[in-house]
Amino acid sequence: MEKNQKKVNIIPLGGLGEIGKNMTVFRYGNDMILLDAGLMFPEDDMLGIDLVIPDITYLVENQDKLRGIFLTHGHEDHIGALPYILKQLDVPVYGTALTLGILEGRLEEAGVSTANLNAIKSGDRIRAGAFKLEFMRVNHSIPDAIGIAIHTPIGLIIHTGDFKIDQTPVDGQVMELNRFAEYGDRGVLLLMADSTNAERPGYTPSEKMVGETFDNEFRHAENRIIIATFSSNVHRIQQICDTAVRYKRKVAVIGRSMQNVVRISLELGYLKVSEGTIIDIDETRNYTNDKIVIICTGSQGEPMSALTRMSMGENRKVQIVPGDTVIISASPIPGNEKMVSNTINHLYMLGAEVVYEKANGVHVSGHASQEELKIMQNLVRPKFFMPVHGEYRHLIKHAGLAVARGMDKKHIVIAENGAVVELTRDKIGINGKVQAGKVLIDGLGVGDVGNIVLRDRRQLSQDGIMIVVVGIDKATNRVTSGPDIVSRGFVYVREAEDLMDQAKVKVQDALNKCEDNKVTEWSAIKGAIRDSLSRFLFDKTRRRPMILPIIMEV
Amino acid sequence: MEKNQKKVNIIPLGGLGEIGKNMTVFRYGNDMILLDAGLMFPEDDMLGIDLVIPDITYLVENQDKLRGIFLTHGHEDHIGALPYILKQLDVPVYGTALTLGILEGRLEEAGVSTANLNAIKSGDRIRAGAFKLEFMRVNHSIPDAIGIAIHTPIGLIIHTGDFKIDQTPVDGQVMELNRFAEYGDRGVLLLMADSTNAERPGYTPSEKMVGETFDNEFRHAENRIIIATFSSNVHRIQQICDTAVRYKRKVAVIGRSMQNVVRISLELGYLKVSEGTIIDIDETRNYTNDKIVIICTGSQGEPMSALTRMSMGENRKVQIVPGDTVIISASPIPGNEKMVSNTINHLYMLGAEVVYEKANGVHVSGHASQEELKIMQNLVRPKFFMPVHGEYRHLIKHAGLAVARGMDKKHIVIAENGAVVELTRDKIGINGKVQAGKVLIDGLGVGDVGNIVLRDRRQLSQDGIMIVVVGIDKATNRVTSGPDIVSRGFVYVREAEDLMDQAKVKVQDALNKCEDNKVTEWSAIKGAIRDSLSRFLFDKTRRRPMILPIIMEV
Repeated sequence: MEKNQKKVNIIPLGGLGEIGKNMTVFRYGNDMILLDAGLMFPEDDMLGIDLVIPDITYLVENQDKLRGIFLTHGHEDHIGALPYILKQLDVPVYGTALTLGILEGRLEEAGVSTANLNAIKSGDRIRAGAFKLEFMRVNHSIPDAIGIAIHTPIGLIIHTGDFKIDQTPVDGQVMELNRFAEYGDRGVLLLMADSTNAERPGYTPSEKMVGETFDNEFRHAENRIIIATFSSNVHRIQQICDTAVRYKRKVAVIGRSMQNVVRISLELGYLKVSEGTIIDIDETRNYTNDKIVIICTGSQGEPMSALTRMSMGENRKVQIVPGDTVIISASPIPGNEKMVSNTINHLYMLGAEVVYEKANGVHVSGHASQEELKIMQNLVRPKFFMPVHGEYRHLIKHAGLAVARGMDKKHIVIAENGAVVELTRDKIGINGKVQAGKVLIDGLGVGDVGNIVLRDRRQLSQDGIMIVVVGIDKATNRVTSGPDIVSRGFVYVREAEDLMDQAKVKVQDALNKCEDNKVTEWSAIKGAIRDSLSRFLFDKTRRRPMILPIIMEV
Repeated sequence: MEKNQKKVNIIPLGGLGEIGKNMTVFRYGNDMILLDAGLMFPEDDMLGIDLVIPDITYLVENQDKLRGIFLTHGHEDHIGALPYILKQLDVPVYGTALTLGILEGRLEEAGVSTANLNAIKSGDRIRAGAFKLEFMRVNHSIPDAIGIAIHTPIGLIIHTGDFKIDQTPVDGQVMELNRFAEYGDRGVLLLMADSTNAERPGYTPSEKMVGETFDNEFRHAENRIIIATFSSNVHRIQQICDTAVRYKRKVAVIGRSMQNVVRISLELGYLKVSEGTIIDIDETRNYTNDKIVIICTGSQGEPMSALTRMSMGENRKVQIVPGDTVIISASPIPGNEKMVSNTINHLYMLGAEVVYEKANGVHVSGHASQEELKIMQNLVRPKFFMPVHGEYRHLIKHAGLAVARGMDKKHIVIAENGAVVELTRDKIGINGKVQAGKVLIDGLGVGDVGNIVLRDRRQLSQDGIMIVVVGIDKATNRVTSGPDIVSRGFVYVREAEDLMDQAKVKVQDALNKCEDNKVTEWSAIKGAIRDSLSRFLFDKTRRRPMILPIIMEV
């Protein structure tokens, strides 16, 4: 390649136009690296789906070029696809200690080898083909998060990862703003930055603010305190433990993911709690309620989580009693508002005092707001800018911040998943497209549920199904038994016998007409049944159940 | 009855423990009145359901005692059940002019007579059996809203209806606080008040604040302006029209419900717009874009609404073009957040500038916040208090405001739908229960979809259905044809032929075992098929499709 024609391709396979399943390819010639490999929770219309991961066809096809996977932090939307994709890709994975600690558990559950994991830390340098990577500490709602500086033959790319700028972080580990500034001094070709909170004016408050809220609540609580939060928010768990020690309470932890993260964080030293503070939930009975704090999962109202079960009176270990203070230390993720609200209602009904969202200071975001995003741009002073991690609305707003700083619009690229972003020393733009999209996980099935199955589920969910079974004699081609009609999810049959009888008559009429017209082809007979029955049912009920004619050869 | 044993029963049939389907019975001896008759939109788990109305069994059974239905305002959650329940109840309906104007349209669509409708206005007095009712103007997000004073033989009950206190209402019609105060002077036995915003501190801003936002946006917009809002918010539509006149723009209205309300409001004089301001959408082509405002439905991201269709490029009349300013003048109702967000993303993708929620002043609530709720309590100074219109969390918070004012907890009742609240001169409490609940509307079906059908729809929606058809000879009781297996919404069959073949073998095994063990009862055979197949499928896929064995007699 001529020097001035050299180019780096940046190919987002997930995380653009959406919140979740972050995954980005960087390619220079025959060298590729991957940044993050996250999952996403299903959209409302993905019925029955458990998880969504990115389509990695492009990675599998270019496996020989892939030099490494680099992880910015341990959240599901950055590491959650690995248990699936590492079954197909044999490649070294790099991440900080806590990131790998969390990932290891996931991989072991999935029966995937952890031999490829390599620990890195801020300040390290790793060479991966034509790329040289360096890592800078950032603040986020999980410890040990990093941004990445990618040295490429055409210039430096800075990727912030998820970040906020916390001037008073709980662990005292301030984000390495100085290093972002130094890169800025040396010249940065492209900045890629977290857009999650690009709509929020001002600054995201420090995590320590939540600690003050805890202090306040602990000071006034006369009985048991129960706090639900994200299991990965180790800083928050640290603050709960610190406050508990201050107010001479013991801390019990329930909920599987919460227990896992606490265990790993204690082992790795990310959580520092004096001996004897954390006790087993069964030991809480040895203490009066005013000496107890319970940390649990369920801050999103997830159906099977500890807090949700408590709110329904179904948790084996903890029964909510009047006088309990329940703090929901989280904001509902869009789509979870109703579930969280139901949990709050049920907790109140059991007599608890509930402290949540609407109160101030019970939660802060882990993502940078507009002023922090501008600080990042002013430190790094990139030639080109690519907002990442966000729905289209967030990317647009983030681009707007760069324009407001004076950046030429032509120096900003808003891409979508699968777009091939072409970066040279002088230009950024989109040039081509690779296969990208969603792979749906349903139970053990990875990608076996597609549009047709989902469309069927949607129809079934709305108006149910009506099955018509007819026996046809193979010799004479005549109907010898049936039609039998069975329905599910359509009407309560015991109260709709008339309707079902009439439906049967309609099918019989259709069959007679087929016979009169010498229609013997099965697909034609099925079509006739479907048409006459669906018209009849729509007239009578204004519903459109799936109609499934089954012909049995007898 | 002895004077001091006299009692009024208050029976909420809807609106408590929920936002929506407000409906309350007041009963004294053999006289009953009904306050409001609203509908609710279905919860997420009510698959395929269009609407929910209250169970009115109690009203139907006591129809001879029902003296009238009184409506506080024209929102769906206060009048939307009438097209259904007036088919069963023959009773006079009282409401203000706009309320009845909106209701008439609904009743005519449903083929229900409007002969029973009676217009009332603030200041009127109506006798209904033992009750005497008076009406007081309140502010709300629809004009012509009223609170109701119910004079009963044991004392005065004040019901606020939905309200806020707007000191600068758009139409200049300040809420009749003086009359609430006068009732307070004379002595109020019970206050029932709107709890919707009982969690919000402070005051709800005046509707006029949104007008200032419009002015700001109009001043800066260089192209077309499109504003989506609730069709019933006539004050907001008035402000849009006023701003349009000020900035010399024409106004076109699209979306069926929006057009209806605008027409009715113009006819009845609630909307005052100078001649020639409102034009047909087809006429907009005669003006340049900077002379146009379009008001439309779709502020909640509803799938078939005008704005949603525009955002998808599917609206026949309006194509979004770069430079358009779209203002979503509403907050997402809980549960609609994702749909609204999708609409915003799509509008941005089409190049529009979008102004929404996160911006200040684009929407204000129609419900009183905490300080207004306290003002109401201090004006009315009731002996007893019953918070209404809200989820449990709202009712609890509202009760807390009364306690903070110094009210004895025993004077406050938090009831649930169906509870019989017994009110005497000296006491309030719950004494008994009547049938109450949800009646689900699905297409033309009213109440024919119940728990069993919904449970089936949920199962179908998650993992689909697998149907097994077997022909059994009636004479010999032996399987003569099949098993045939058909699935929908489970896996994409073309890619899962192996699995389907194995499933067939499993069923065949189960049938053989039945034959070996001389099992001939159909239910037992079906059970055997279901058990072996569901175990097999769960092992293989971790899914639980509905399994439906059908035996056909041949």
